[in-house]
Amino acid sequence: MTARPPAPAGTRVPDTALAGGVGGVAGGLRTLTAIALDALADGAAERGGPLPAGGPQAVAERTRALCTPMLPRRGTGAADALYDTVRAAAQGAADPADPHCVAHLHCPPLALAAAADLAASALNPSMDSWDQAPAAAVIEEEVSAALARLVYPAAPRPDALITSGGTESNLVALLLARERARAAGTGPVRVLCGRAAHHSVQRAAWLLGLPAPAAVECRDGRMLPAALDRALAGLGGAPALVVATAGTTDEGAVDPLPELARVAASHGAELHVDAAYGGPLLFSDRLAPMLAGIEQAVSVTFDLHKFGWQPVAAGVLALADAGRATALSLRADYLNADDDTEAGLPDLLGRSLRTSRRPDVLKIAATLRGLGRDGLGRLVEHCVDTARELGRTIDADAHLRRRPGEIGISTVLFRPAAADRLAERQGEAAGDALVAEVRRRLLADGLAVLGRARAADPDAGGRRRLWLKATLLHPRTTAGELAGLLKLVTELARDRPVTTPA
Amino acid sequence: MTARPPAPAGTRVPDTALAGGVGGVAGGLRTLTAIALDALADGAAERGGPLPAGGPQAVAERTRALCTPMLPRRGTGAADALYDTVRAAAQGAADPADPHCVAHLHCPPLALAAAADLAASALNPSMDSWDQAPAAAVIEEEVSAALARLVYPAAPRPDALITSGGTESNLVALLLARERARAAGTGPVRVLCGRAAHHSVQRAAWLLGLPAPAAVECRDGRMLPAALDRALAGLGGAPALVVATAGTTDEGAVDPLPELARVAASHGAELHVDAAYGGPLLFSDRLAPMLAGIEQAVSVTFDLHKFGWQPVAAGVLALADAGRATALSLRADYLNADDDTEAGLPDLLGRSLRTSRRPDVLKIAATLRGLGRDGLGRLVEHCVDTARELGRTIDADAHLRRRPGEIGISTVLFRPAAADRLAERQGEAAGDALVAEVRRRLLADGLAVLGRARAADPDAGGRRRLWLKATLLHPRTTAGELAGLLKLVTELARDRPVTTPA
Repeated sequence: MTARPPAPAGTRVPDTALAGGVGGVAGGLRTLTAIALDALADGAAERGGPLPAGGPQAVAERTRALCTPMLPRRGTGAADALYDTVRAAAQGAADPADPHCVAHLHCPPLALAAAADLAASALNPSMDSWDQAPAAAVIEEEVSAALARLVYPAAPRPDALITSGGTESNLVALLLARERARAAGTGPVRVLCGRAAHHSVQRAAWLLGLPAPAAVECRDGRMLPAALDRALAGLGGAPALVVATAGTTDEGAVDPLPELARVAASHGAELHVDAAYGGPLLFSDRLAPMLAGIEQAVSVTFDLHKFGWQPVAAGVLALADAGRATALSLRADYLNADDDTEAGLPDLLGRSLRTSRRPDVLKIAATLRGLGRDGLGRLVEHCVDTARELGRTIDADAHLRRRPGEIGISTVLFRPAAADRLAERQGEAAGDALVAEVRRRLLADGLAVLGRARAADPDAGGRRRLWLKATLLHPRTTAGELAGLLKLVTELARDRPVTTPA
Repeated sequence: MTARPPAPAGTRVPDTALAGGVGGVAGGLRTLTAIALDALADGAAERGGPLPAGGPQAVAERTRALCTPMLPRRGTGAADALYDTVRAAAQGAADPADPHCVAHLHCPPLALAAAADLAASALNPSMDSWDQAPAAAVIEEEVSAALARLVYPAAPRPDALITSGGTESNLVALLLARERARAAGTGPVRVLCGRAAHHSVQRAAWLLGLPAPAAVECRDGRMLPAALDRALAGLGGAPALVVATAGTTDEGAVDPLPELARVAASHGAELHVDAAYGGPLLFSDRLAPMLAGIEQAVSVTFDLHKFGWQPVAAGVLALADAGRATALSLRADYLNADDDTEAGLPDLLGRSLRTSRRPDVLKIAATLRGLGRDGLGRLVEHCVDTARELGRTIDADAHLRRRPGEIGISTVLFRPAAADRLAERQGEAAGDALVAEVRRRLLADGLAVLGRARAADPDAGGRRRLWLKATLLHPRTTAGELAGLLKLVTELARDRPVTTPA
């Protein structure tokens, strides 16, 4: 292990220097930030590729060598601990800024967003009362208004809450529906979602003590309006929330929103759209029509740490009407006493399920204003276009087979032709095992981070098979870089012996 | 408004530069971070004091002038948007690094922690699968183990989950109790907590669909064991979770944990301790005895963004036994397929209610290792000692009166003697209104951020009165700085006409 390069003379910083205050930057934050940047650069160079080579055990050993003991009796000093921890994190990162890291809805953050996020850490505003976040509260209000208007351009009084991500947004959406039904005295709300909906819908119902969501039949990963119609008819008029998805995790499929909205309305049911993935298509004039009908939802989940290029967390829950959020209202004398509110101190407490809350809006604000709607739209378009280009490249490659049908947003499913041949000779399990094994070998060798998804194969009578998944969220990837990724897959599928798990 | 200083020559960065990758630091992150640091320093200098002067309206106008329109069609460019947003946030911050900002459990972060947090933003590991966070997952495992061992030194298999704060920790604690009762088939769990417990206990029960918590009588802000005994006896053997508090929000009071543990055990009830505030007393050998008995709890809420000097979020839920967390287990094929887990890929999904999750452990790790247990213990001791010193100063000041009795952890309640005189002449409401008005004037003038708390006054027959609250979390404040704060209060209480709200 190499040690931290010696700090330049005159830069000795006390271990307990504070980040804030008038003297915070000069008194330590600038020097320590420079050390963190050095560690990021050194760690990334040591890693080299999209993820560390050697697999979980090797990564654990290297990380422990740099970072433990974790809580010694006597500390190592700020500079060394900082350099070692950040270097270990960078050395052992799966880095979505590498074009071969395309497994998940896990985006490479913009340098702009990461730099702005430093202000959240240094100033530490907490979004639960005005006297902890005077300016940050205004910035959040402006960001919320802009995003609410993006989703609901014609609503008289839209709003948007900032959340920790799609899971929390879906939770709050279900909670608000639960409370609405409770207030109306119409019995517990029933939740319905497509079989391809994100697991957080099921989990939210469980958390909230609601009946398990009814799973509505899908075709090609998209909810069938006729199936929804039947499911709603079977509820006998109970209050219902239909959760549609705009961009499924496995396939990037967008549910037929206008049809689902019409069916829901015909039964007096409400519609929520989980657009954690697809929501930012709205930034692009060319792509926004893919989400036609979304404005008919009472609430929309919308993440900016997928498309949006923010570090986690940057979740949003847009509401067609601000009044829907009143169920979150809360009075806590130390944070929003009545006489303080009457005297003009803004009440921030009813905007989240959390109490102390990091101002994730600072980075979002810098990004929205710096890139503008067109700038963000161009980045979304790049990803969507690149996915289509990747699809064409796969279609032209005899060693690979793309899952037939449309590409969902920017998600491409494919598998080695060798897996198909193996399935034919030794059965489906053997073909699927090759797909899984190729993915794991790429991970273990530090060569690529590809995802996996089980989805119907129209070329095999609609059987559900395992596919490799490339989720393109990199706003600058080139076709050449992706061709290199495909070559790795082809070579591995040809060379590796398959070990079927027991 | 002054504009951003021109960037040094040769530092032009593309607006869409990415933070990560081998070239991320040199390709833009270093330059943009320098701009953010300049903006932090410029904004703090423009603010000067603990918070911006002028009150909510003035702050909103200045902030909007710098940051809006928030989502223009065409962006302003990365550098300008970054500088303006961060400068606005700093200019309009309530900065806990200023010794006169002592309202809330809102700490000034260490420069070390803020610098380490930049790595979380730049690398963007997401803690829901190994292939998004290979090294960060190992660091989280080590941090969890160290903190679990701190709380439960003798338990055979303790664990700790990383959360977004005390609110989420309490939510998960109640959820795990709910699921345990459900699995045992013993009917819904009943929650009991002191009247002074944090509002998040009530909110968690509401969210989870549990009966509202029973409020147990307190004296001096501490739960009475005899009252708990009666309350538990009244449940007729229903499964129960007692939520004790180690450091109440209003008074810093620590419930009598050993007695409460004994009473709970005698009824077969479980104990959870909300030590969001007090937990880090365990870092100090001298102060740890204040939490004697905490190891008898099945779970402990423990925040490091209060004592711990981390930027929000840095929440922890320590568990006496790792098995208790199995109710959070979750299978999602794209994140932790069975064959991947069997092949050795670690399964991270069952460690949080969130899915995508920022690695808040990186900053915690750098801090634990850099300062060590003794270093952190000394900072906690400084705050506790300073609170006692502040108490003595108030006791010696004829213009102020401290709430009689022991100081809770590092929270000092006091009010101007003028408020007592006013209460005597014009009634309690007038005295309380003066206290509230002094706090709001200090806020509006940008002079100090003091908290408020309603608590019994033994000198007034136990009547509940409004107090000013100083929560000392600043690890370097001096007695002289705090004397200056008291002088501000005295002067305002003397000079300001009181306006009682309608």
